[in-house]
Amino acid sequence: MTNPQLARLRASIDNLDTALICLMAERFKVTQQVGYLKRDLGLPPADPEREEQQVARLRALAQEAELDPDFAEKLLNFIVKEVVRHHEVIAGK
Amino acid sequence: MTNPQLARLRASIDNLDTALICLMAERFKVTQQVGYLKRDLGLPPADPEREEQQVARLRALAQEAELDPDFAEKLLNFIVKEVVRHHEVIAGK
Repeated sequence: MTNPQLARLRASIDNLDTALICLMAERFKVTQQVGYLKRDLGLPPADPEREEQQVARLRALAQEAELDPDFAEKLLNFIVKEVVRHHEVIAGK
Repeated sequence: MTNPQLARLRASIDNLDTALICLMAERFKVTQQVGYLKRDLGLPPADPEREEQQVARLRALAQEAELDPDFAEKLLNFIVKEVVRHHEVIAGK
């Protein structure tokens, strides 16, 4: 049987994960719109300047929220890689 | 100059990212507590059975939220890898 304190902490993790999944779903809905717009405007799928600004912004936010800024940057890279993959699919349509 | 529609979509992405960073910071605060508790209870840092339940749960949630379930699973693996690394540091203290 699971320790009750561990079970309580895991229930909080599950609630946070539900929120994370919903936010992530919304984020991809927006980036999908960005993908179609970029295709219509003839813009390339990746935008290194925008990504650089995002990294700086998220690192600062992470620091304030007491999250490891390196992890925040790795997370953004992980998400952006998936987004660029989607944009390439859209651009290739 | 950035297209106004693109700027508007990017502002939404930035707002969602702020929320994501804050949730992620809270998630690591909880998993850190889990790490200390596991150390005190003599439990191993990783828990494959719990992770399997999380994967199944998040894939179902992703489907409902119209997020690619494979991406949700990859994201969880990415986060759990970081969490286990933290737990190993705590266990080694």
